Amino acid sequence: MRLALQMAEKATGQTGINPVVGCVVVKDGRIVGIGTHLQRGGPHAEVHALQMAGDEAAGATAYVTLEPCSHFGRTPPCADRLVAEKVGRVVVACTDPNPQVAGKGIEKLRSHGIRVDVGVLEAEARAQNEMFNKYIVTRLPFVTLKSATTLDGKIASKTGDSKWISGEASRASVHMLRHRHQAIMVGVDTVIADDPLLTARMDAPALQPVRLVVDSRLRIPLDARVVKDRESAKTIVLTTNQASIEQIMRLNALGVEVIKCGDGPRVDLRKAMAIVGEREIGSILLEGGGTLNGAMLEAGLVDKIVLFLAPKIVGGTDAPGAFAMAGFERMADAIALDRVTVERIGDDCCITGYPRTERREPGCLPES
Amino acid sequence: MRLALQMAEKATGQTGINPVVGCVVVKDGRIVGIGTHLQRGGPHAEVHALQMAGDEAAGATAYVTLEPCSHFGRTPPCADRLVAEKVGRVVVACTDPNPQVAGKGIEKLRSHGIRVDVGVLEAEARAQNEMFNKYIVTRLPFVTLKSATTLDGKIASKTGDSKWISGEASRASVHMLRHRHQAIMVGVDTVIADDPLLTARMDAPALQPVRLVVDSRLRIPLDARVVKDRESAKTIVLTTNQASIEQIMRLNALGVEVIKCGDGPRVDLRKAMAIVGEREIGSILLEGGGTLNGAMLEAGLVDKIVLFLAPKIVGGTDAPGAFAMAGFERMADAIALDRVTVERIGDDCCITGYPRTERREPGCLPES
Repeated sequence: MRLALQMAEKATGQTGINPVVGCVVVKDGRIVGIGTHLQRGGPHAEVHALQMAGDEAAGATAYVTLEPCSHFGRTPPCADRLVAEKVGRVVVACTDPNPQVAGKGIEKLRSHGIRVDVGVLEAEARAQNEMFNKYIVTRLPFVTLKSATTLDGKIASKTGDSKWISGEASRASVHMLRHRHQAIMVGVDTVIADDPLLTARMDAPALQPVRLVVDSRLRIPLDARVVKDRESAKTIVLTTNQASIEQIMRLNALGVEVIKCGDGPRVDLRKAMAIVGEREIGSILLEGGGTLNGAMLEAGLVDKIVLFLAPKIVGGTDAPGAFAMAGFERMADAIALDRVTVERIGDDCCITGYPRTERREPGCLPES
Repeated sequence: MRLALQMAEKATGQTGINPVVGCVVVKDGRIVGIGTHLQRGGPHAEVHALQMAGDEAAGATAYVTLEPCSHFGRTPPCADRLVAEKVGRVVVACTDPNPQVAGKGIEKLRSHGIRVDVGVLEAEARAQNEMFNKYIVTRLPFVTLKSATTLDGKIASKTGDSKWISGEASRASVHMLRHRHQAIMVGVDTVIADDPLLTARMDAPALQPVRLVVDSRLRIPLDARVVKDRESAKTIVLTTNQASIEQIMRLNALGVEVIKCGDGPRVDLRKAMAIVGEREIGSILLEGGGTLNGAMLEAGLVDKIVLFLAPKIVGGTDAPGAFAMAGFERMADAIALDRVTVERIGDDCCITGYPRTERREPGCLPES
């Protein structure tokens, strides 16, 4: 199962909205087949592994990181295939939260007399698909907020200089983070200030996430790199019903999609997430400035925070922070993170956690 | 030598201005004596260890974490004692930066035919006495800035609520930090806002550090706990020549010493450090608010930073941060920390480092 998890982990970022899944088929103490779900629409992990096992699948034990599917999606049900191959036993790490599956895959196997054990390395398996697990149940994307700050919480100096806060190693790991999400989201002010390309730049060519720009009044420059660069990735601008139709047409002509999220004046972020979810974007890396980050956090739309802390102090009361929010009156009401992990990355410290969701109200993005 | 360092470490905080030193005497593969310098004015580590070794010291090897002293201080020179006991060999972790010693102890041993090896676990030994090492050369106290902030760099909410930012484990470790310094320093605003006792509260009774309050206009309330509590520790108020003589007399009558540091209107922090150094206070734990922390940091008077980061986000643009400084225009000019270490303490993350000293100018505390 450990191997199956490792194989699945490697595919993170390349299966789109689909979960990552690994499968190892073992017979008489020997591995006879291994498989990973590599690409949406392509064969599932079980199918790859059974194919490799061939005749040896009969009577073998299949270790799968996720409950085998029981429904016809883009491919036929894996549970049926396991039955057809006469597999003797299936060990499952965790059930599939997908309401179309949710235990039915396991039921089907058992109804055909296959022994099924569930829960081996369950926590690891569940964490591996944390994005899928949220999306498949809520149809809202899993949002990871990523920021890099100084020790005094600043994302730029008082003059706006932000090059660089974190070290090379941290910046490299951000490209991996981008690759592992289906979309990157920023505010239009970031586009105006930094003109980022917002692609995942890694040693090898990578699937590129969709670029989402929150821009209530369509201030995005037509010569911005995220507009001009049509090859690496699609760009979607999230705006309001107040947006000028002429500007929308100009952007459309340049290949940029514009989606209206609410009546304005601010972009309705909840609505935006629902619309993005409908497009089968199940995960977003939020790389906003303080305003967008703060609004998303206050709206309860942030599922995970990845914060790179650089060991430096830049000062400046007006220098911007990573979270511009009205803020809480009582320290006890602060948004706490659960399941915190701390990692050294080069000279930086990377803190990861999951904001607790109680007490937060739906919110909108302040006028931008 | 490892044991000698461990013994020395345990005495940190109880030797006052003196370094911590451990000594292990070994003969024929057996430990025959161990010793630690426990208290200023008391016997040095070597003396304790030789006493325990008795006749077995002759021909033995002494492992000492710091070069044996060669001068008459409060006790006679240890080098002489090692010679008198006919020790065969001395292994020294690091030389003593004290200009009164600085190699003379080793010379004296060698001139009596004793073999001396220097540099075993040198880095550890030097780090163990980092405070002493600065003080004995500069006569200025080693300043450790300690703060606890949220992930967005706040030391309180926008209403000033700061209870609690860090968790229990972090707060307990602050008491150990206090114990390991000769003084605790705060600004008068902290005394007015929080009325802290500023003592080291540990499971066992501890030596109490001196309390230093930076207070340019003597606004300290006469019923503040640091004034009323005369038993646990001495309180010194650092002020300016503009301070009212009546208020000084009132404070003196309550047992509080008042020291004028410069003409004002702000307390001259460099002068303050020099005066405190003359009082043989060699180490200060700075637990200031943002203003005092920022001024000390800008003045280049902070040697080490210990920052507890609590995994929460409180927000509020006006909520105070740990470092109120004018700040740098370029991110590249930010004050960087060297030798950074990261530690999990309970749910918190503790980041420790040493601010680089280039580029910082002498500064004063903004009017308070």
